[in-house]
Amino acid sequence: MLRASVYVTLRRGVLDPQGETIKSSLNRLGFEEVVGVRAGKYLELDLCTEDAALARPRLEAMCRQLLANPVIEDYTLEIEELEAPCDSA
Amino acid sequence: MLRASVYVTLRRGVLDPQGETIKSSLNRLGFEEVVGVRAGKYLELDLCTEDAALARPRLEAMCRQLLANPVIEDYTLEIEELEAPCDSA
Repeated sequence: MLRASVYVTLRRGVLDPQGETIKSSLNRLGFEEVVGVRAGKYLELDLCTEDAALARPRLEAMCRQLLANPVIEDYTLEIEELEAPCDSA
Repeated sequence: MLRASVYVTLRRGVLDPQGETIKSSLNRLGFEEVVGVRAGKYLELDLCTEDAALARPRLEAMCRQLLANPVIEDYTLEIEELEAPCDSA
């Protein structure tokens, strides 16, 4: 079994009102050293396959089709192998 | 300047309806190898400080107070140093 970590972030230059709100709130709580926040998504996908080379292009297709909006978001993939067999998922 | 990456994930055992929905959608799109999805948040914080040792406990305080819900969520921190000086943020 493979586990993929997918990080979806807004592209540079795209306004991030959620990040701005978090930054203001942290500043108000006394964390004045925070000068910028960007908010994104983190997804962990368990894949019932052993072939990481095949899994990567399929994960990229998942990102393009569903997980990220390619117009305003970038994504990063990390793939690791899990010891667990598929049926224990 | 420091950049902190904060990963907020649901604790094991906490129901994740968003992840379940993403899994079902991926399966419907033909990605049948996806057997589990956990959804979380990914935050990038820029901190105007050079002291990583001091920054870590403050980041943990931010997570406890605002960024994560410690009852149902876990968080992971990574800190890296940026070349850029503070005023360019």
